[in-house]
Amino acid sequence: MKKRISLTVAYDGTQYCGWQIQNNGKTVQGELNRCLEELLGCPVETMGASRTDAGVHALGNVAVFDTDSRIPGEKFSFALNQRLPEDIRIQTSQEVDPDFHPRYCKSEKTYRYRILNRRSPLPTERLYSYFYHYPLDVEKMQTAAAYLIGEHDFASFCGAGAQVKSTVRLVTDFTAGREGEMVYLQVTGRGFLYNMVRIFAGTLIQIGNGAYPPERIQEILGARDRGAAGPTAPACGLTLQGIRFFSGDRD
Amino acid sequence: MKKRISLTVAYDGTQYCGWQIQNNGKTVQGELNRCLEELLGCPVETMGASRTDAGVHALGNVAVFDTDSRIPGEKFSFALNQRLPEDIRIQTSQEVDPDFHPRYCKSEKTYRYRILNRRSPLPTERLYSYFYHYPLDVEKMQTAAAYLIGEHDFASFCGAGAQVKSTVRLVTDFTAGREGEMVYLQVTGRGFLYNMVRIFAGTLIQIGNGAYPPERIQEILGARDRGAAGPTAPACGLTLQGIRFFSGDRD
Repeated sequence: MKKRISLTVAYDGTQYCGWQIQNNGKTVQGELNRCLEELLGCPVETMGASRTDAGVHALGNVAVFDTDSRIPGEKFSFALNQRLPEDIRIQTSQEVDPDFHPRYCKSEKTYRYRILNRRSPLPTERLYSYFYHYPLDVEKMQTAAAYLIGEHDFASFCGAGAQVKSTVRLVTDFTAGREGEMVYLQVTGRGFLYNMVRIFAGTLIQIGNGAYPPERIQEILGARDRGAAGPTAPACGLTLQGIRFFSGDRD
Repeated sequence: MKKRISLTVAYDGTQYCGWQIQNNGKTVQGELNRCLEELLGCPVETMGASRTDAGVHALGNVAVFDTDSRIPGEKFSFALNQRLPEDIRIQTSQEVDPDFHPRYCKSEKTYRYRILNRRSPLPTERLYSYFYHYPLDVEKMQTAAAYLIGEHDFASFCGAGAQVKSTVRLVTDFTAGREGEMVYLQVTGRGFLYNMVRIFAGTLIQIGNGAYPPERIQEILGARDRGAAGPTAPACGLTLQGIRFFSGDRD
């Protein structure tokens, strides 16, 4: 009797070529499949909610797999953590409805982008933030962030190479704040385009440093052209904080 | 004309066999000497304030060296950061009095020990904190910390192998607190014994988890015996936050 198990997965993306399995290069999904095969004695395919890029971190990505093992759902986290490398850790595991699919079920993802904003780089922050030397005006960044909340055509914030039918997405929350020397951007939305949060970050940095006024966001949105927005900020600053699923519905 | 330059050095200790130069193994001092030699074209010996152990981090260790180079003191930070590996970064550099010696001048050091106190390990925190699964009562830890403030014989908190004339030291401040899932211990003192802060941490964890009452600290101090205190907590949780020098005086 097959059952579906859902895993909440945290990882340090520094050493990985992203989530999605590939032939050349170590991936989070690849490690997960390998450890599940080791545990269950047969090949296992996981399906992930978010295919995070190379170098992007996660506190709560979600993956499912099907198995006829008699291991109770909640025991998989412990069993997998015994086998996984220390830069991947299952936070929780549970049996879920066999219909639940983390990519197709309606959900809201929250990302955080961290910018270390001080005079000199700090070695102990270098792996999990983007170092930015020039002063950032967080209030201006917050004003700009507010323009991005809502349903918009985010074509200007979509990285090259993305193959999507529509570039319209719904951003439900976007906060810019500062905790000491760390500036953070936290954005929640229903689906994101390729590199969208990193282009948000690169653009908001240009606003925080005074290169553009916050109102420029409206023009950038209107342009529907990647060239209108700021650069793509580096992957190391980005963390997928978590995913909230709306039970039952599919997008 | 020789002048003395002081450097404030931040590093991620993960990849190093500690501060002090040694024949086998990469050290922070070794990297610094190598980059100074590269920059100045002659062998340079740095003298550090704190010989942090393997795996211990620093935001503000202090080192000095003598040179007859005409590079202005404040330019060394930039010049060295061009050459240093990314897990070591000079925060500031300046010319100082030729009498200033970071190890012998009177000073106060502040260390922070971080304990990630939650159900599962977090990969993105694993390098800079000690993961501890059982609940910790931070109020009890704070009560215990208060007993350690003042001038005491800290023989019970001195790691084996230390060669010191006296184990009396002055702790001027000691705070235990919690920021979300991170419990921290912050201790300031005039000189520390070998592994002293890590044994403080290991002992306060035993108090936070209920194994000992906070008052036990008095007995442990009185015992003057390393066996009376708790275990030495892992190096990765420890960071030398900074050093304050009392101008002119020598200890």
